[in-house]
Amino acid sequence: MSPVRFRTDTAVSPVGDGRYAANIVDGWDINGNANGGYLLAIAARAIAAESGRPDPYTITAHYLAPGKPGPITVDVDIVRSGRLMVTSTARMRDSEGKVLMQLLAGCGDLATSAGPEQITIAPPDVPPPDECASTTNDLVPMPFRARIEVRLHPDDAGFVRGEPSGQAVIRGWFRLRDSESLDTIAVLQAVDAFPPAVFNTSLPVSWVPTLELTTHVRARAEGEWLRCRLSTNVVAGGFLEEESEVWDEQGRFIAQSRQLALVPRPK
Amino acid sequence: MSPVRFRTDTAVSPVGDGRYAANIVDGWDINGNANGGYLLAIAARAIAAESGRPDPYTITAHYLAPGKPGPITVDVDIVRSGRLMVTSTARMRDSEGKVLMQLLAGCGDLATSAGPEQITIAPPDVPPPDECASTTNDLVPMPFRARIEVRLHPDDAGFVRGEPSGQAVIRGWFRLRDSESLDTIAVLQAVDAFPPAVFNTSLPVSWVPTLELTTHVRARAEGEWLRCRLSTNVVAGGFLEEESEVWDEQGRFIAQSRQLALVPRPK
Repeated sequence: MSPVRFRTDTAVSPVGDGRYAANIVDGWDINGNANGGYLLAIAARAIAAESGRPDPYTITAHYLAPGKPGPITVDVDIVRSGRLMVTSTARMRDSEGKVLMQLLAGCGDLATSAGPEQITIAPPDVPPPDECASTTNDLVPMPFRARIEVRLHPDDAGFVRGEPSGQAVIRGWFRLRDSESLDTIAVLQAVDAFPPAVFNTSLPVSWVPTLELTTHVRARAEGEWLRCRLSTNVVAGGFLEEESEVWDEQGRFIAQSRQLALVPRPK
Repeated sequence: MSPVRFRTDTAVSPVGDGRYAANIVDGWDINGNANGGYLLAIAARAIAAESGRPDPYTITAHYLAPGKPGPITVDVDIVRSGRLMVTSTARMRDSEGKVLMQLLAGCGDLATSAGPEQITIAPPDVPPPDECASTTNDLVPMPFRARIEVRLHPDDAGFVRGEPSGQAVIRGWFRLRDSESLDTIAVLQAVDAFPPAVFNTSLPVSWVPTLELTTHVRARAEGEWLRCRLSTNVVAGGFLEEESEVWDEQGRFIAQSRQLALVPRPK
């Protein structure tokens, strides 16, 4: 039997009128709050289902309140159903009606993609997963680290020993546990699974809650591992941006994201 | 009297229940369709007004139908009103009710910004505006070019003579006509005012309609000119992404954006 935990734990059930029921499953949290990529994946499943299109070409999420284990709903409102893309808004609420996340997305079918290709960025130079110590997965807080696997480039993992590289860059590999296969919605999990790139600087930043995250998924991944590069270029005014690029094992460009995150003042 | 054309032509009037009336003013179009940055600025004025906060920290727009001169409405729905940021959705419709644009935004007050600063990207190296031929503004189609002014780096302007630089990069200056002062909403105009960076490649791309555009505004600009860098890294599958970075005359980082645009197949 092939592993399906991520698929099961992000599943949604239609209950009519564009509403989907789902569960924030225990174990996908960091210090009690569900991981942002995990919440995004649940919302994206509802959006893709209501859109009748499997792939989130572009999805923007605003994170408004922490997600706790338990039942949630996702209400999807189709704004425009085009040939190429179905545009929708969505809202995730907990069982008491509190809004956890507001989204705006465009879904389509990447199997129909065609056009000229010119990619002028390269996959990050990362040693193969087996040569990146599997212990670097310990940099992801529990219990989330038991659900996904990340392996960092050895040069980018020093921050945990108090030896940041000095560059706000983290390169590494991501996969779901038990080599569960990756659909384009699992890619949304990947872009928010790594430690923040800013941890590789000497800035006094201990956590960076995401305010807004936009991801463009450009192709379907082959293989079990995703090769990722996270970086932050602009820390200023109490915010930072974090970029991600995602490539598959074959070096195919899969996705990119940018988030705006809060830089809480040191206590 | 200081110039106010952009401010006037993007003005909105509240008509109750979160609805704002506005006009797509003739002259802000390219070949009959209103420029995307101009439409975004109108929507952002409505969002900022309803939010009671002047600055779009993060704003995502999906472009769903072309805008033609005439009356429009923008309906703003506040999702969460936080201390730091007011999150809202908005929908722009024409007088027949057709949805032109769907938005998701977070507004705040950049005057209250504070925190550590570390910026690891540099303003693009562009000669002063007076040394960038003002004729490069002619690369912007009429009548839009009479409303804004762009001056390109001479090295990035060859594509108009059929001599693309080979790199999907365009560097240059932007200002509103008559040196009208720049608020953070005018910055939204700037990120969608330049010719597409992909024109500097040999790819057979003649127009690139924007599907989705997300902009983060990080600071208020001083001076009349913005120094901009547009680039495209990934053309694939019938889409491209375009990035922008915006800096002010003093070299302060002001904003960045990323858009997903369509690459129409050559006819």
